[in-house]
Amino acid sequence: MSSTRKYHTIDGTFRMLRGSIQSPTIAYETSGTLNPARDNAVLIFTGLSPSAHVCATEEDPSPGWWEAMVGPDKPIDTNRYFVVCANSLGSCFGSTGPASVDPETGELYRLRFPVLTLEDIATAARHVLAALGIKQLAAAVGASMGGMSALAFAVLFPGISRGLVLISSAARSLPFSIALRSLQREIIRRDPAWQNGAYADAGPIGGMRLARKLGMITYRSATEWEQRFGRERVTEERESGDPFCIDFEIESYLEAHANKFIGTFDANCYLYLSRASDLFDVSDHGGSPDAAYRRVRAERGLVVGVESDFLFPIRQQEELVEGLSQSIPQIDFKALASIQGHDSFLVDMDRFRPVIGDFFQE
Amino acid sequence: MSSTRKYHTIDGTFRMLRGSIQSPTIAYETSGTLNPARDNAVLIFTGLSPSAHVCATEEDPSPGWWEAMVGPDKPIDTNRYFVVCANSLGSCFGSTGPASVDPETGELYRLRFPVLTLEDIATAARHVLAALGIKQLAAAVGASMGGMSALAFAVLFPGISRGLVLISSAARSLPFSIALRSLQREIIRRDPAWQNGAYADAGPIGGMRLARKLGMITYRSATEWEQRFGRERVTEERESGDPFCIDFEIESYLEAHANKFIGTFDANCYLYLSRASDLFDVSDHGGSPDAAYRRVRAERGLVVGVESDFLFPIRQQEELVEGLSQSIPQIDFKALASIQGHDSFLVDMDRFRPVIGDFFQE
Repeated sequence: MSSTRKYHTIDGTFRMLRGSIQSPTIAYETSGTLNPARDNAVLIFTGLSPSAHVCATEEDPSPGWWEAMVGPDKPIDTNRYFVVCANSLGSCFGSTGPASVDPETGELYRLRFPVLTLEDIATAARHVLAALGIKQLAAAVGASMGGMSALAFAVLFPGISRGLVLISSAARSLPFSIALRSLQREIIRRDPAWQNGAYADAGPIGGMRLARKLGMITYRSATEWEQRFGRERVTEERESGDPFCIDFEIESYLEAHANKFIGTFDANCYLYLSRASDLFDVSDHGGSPDAAYRRVRAERGLVVGVESDFLFPIRQQEELVEGLSQSIPQIDFKALASIQGHDSFLVDMDRFRPVIGDFFQE
Repeated sequence: MSSTRKYHTIDGTFRMLRGSIQSPTIAYETSGTLNPARDNAVLIFTGLSPSAHVCATEEDPSPGWWEAMVGPDKPIDTNRYFVVCANSLGSCFGSTGPASVDPETGELYRLRFPVLTLEDIATAARHVLAALGIKQLAAAVGASMGGMSALAFAVLFPGISRGLVLISSAARSLPFSIALRSLQREIIRRDPAWQNGAYADAGPIGGMRLARKLGMITYRSATEWEQRFGRERVTEERESGDPFCIDFEIESYLEAHANKFIGTFDANCYLYLSRASDLFDVSDHGGSPDAAYRRVRAERGLVVGVESDFLFPIRQQEELVEGLSQSIPQIDFKALASIQGHDSFLVDMDRFRPVIGDFFQE
């Protein structure tokens, strides 16, 4: 098995759905070995915040963001598959995005970066595959925003991937999730330190902290938190005299998660990626959902949803299965009873591993 | 029928659960006529933001916050009942709260106001009843925070009210709703204009705008918004060049609601009332939920919940019915299929009117 972190620069003008940029770079990692037929690759699209580091590699042995799912003898088995995970175009972990230097001006793109779409992310990943000499994928996989990107990939590049795995994803963003993301963006933008995107150094730390907390609230579930935290108190902070200090365990949990996040993610990149999810609607491809689904050409599909997920609810998964069954002859649907909400694919490994493993066993 | 707006000042020291204040005033409105037996009064507790103006009165003919429910020939019929609605202690519509002058210092209380609890709100309302010479209520009624206040009232003052009506309420706040309210408070407190509560004039307008948007998201439902807004766009604003301007109808809807709210509600009062909801746990009265429920003495009860409410979910209503059935001989539960979420009691009048009307017909 070999593991590498690489950067692919797309030469020349890269046309995006709503603009273009010059010679963007895409950071990616690979694990496993590409077979002689060059057809055992699995392309993994990420959610909003992860990097390309999906699993521990020889170069970077730290655990990846989906460590329990990807690796030797894991459900997506790198003894068998050549796993490719790209950092999304527009992100800030090695790929070109709003935090990168625009080669045409020598300055950071910031808000001059074109409006980003998930189609652009899918197209950029397609360039990485081409650079690796991969013409056929065993599967394209994505969860959350990554699932929408994987769907965009399947619609834009039919026939490249034999398999399609969409987890806690959607055919389009609905107003409830748009509202939650729009508010996260507004919280960041109203932080005076955002400075209309032209911040120096750390930028709108305060806004990012609050936006991340709102994000976390949408990623988990009321049931999980009731079982896990109930009304437990953080007693040591209660007597501080500040009537609004952290009092309940749940407040302390959100604070800890926000503290871990801020400083690691560029605010403008967050805004662009967040909005890209809002903008996604599969029916942009052909004028109707069915027209879009019928463009897909794949042999096998798997749609996984979680009953406690209120950001990408189960009915959106059902719609995907129904739609994709028009063009994918063998498609399976798993509705999991995980209580961890949208994030279940990252934490409820007991339920997710067998489901994903079964698909990749075949 | 007579309608009046009045102010009752509680003479001397008013002991709160976590402090005391001097001679607070409670604003209240009454509609209808107190009968000679003085036992036809209905006490209505409000949610976080309403004033005492529950319905149009002769003095103030503008529509009240529950206009469709309260008035002559309405479900809570003021031809028959004497309706009393108080502005919560801690609020800013005539009652004493953080935005009031502390008579001991001559300055605004601001953050020197004691930590507020729903028990304090219930106790203050009890003083209003005493001032009106009311020893027996036909019913205590409340929705949302008002339902928790009504429950506190029923536990603290057993036997005063023959009826208890709790709508979209809870026996205690759970971590999911605490998280959502805590984040609203943090958004306000991190607005530099909040100035640790010592703001002049309008105060943290920006923070209040964002907090209200988050509140609105929790008050409605994904289903309602999907049906009402879908992915409709606000086309005229799309070409402004700002990649994060209002684009979707849902964003415009939230903006309009936030604009209506800001400037009308004092930020510190919002913080205190919001936290009062977090702090409520009926089991503080007796050490367990059942011990608390058994303190209630009432003849009839009604608990109403809404299936699409994720802030005060239906299982919390079921728990209330089960608990209160230990002490209220005749108790009814209605789970309504309204799609408007937590706010359904304010907007889905076709479903709510008959349910509330039936209770008050008896």
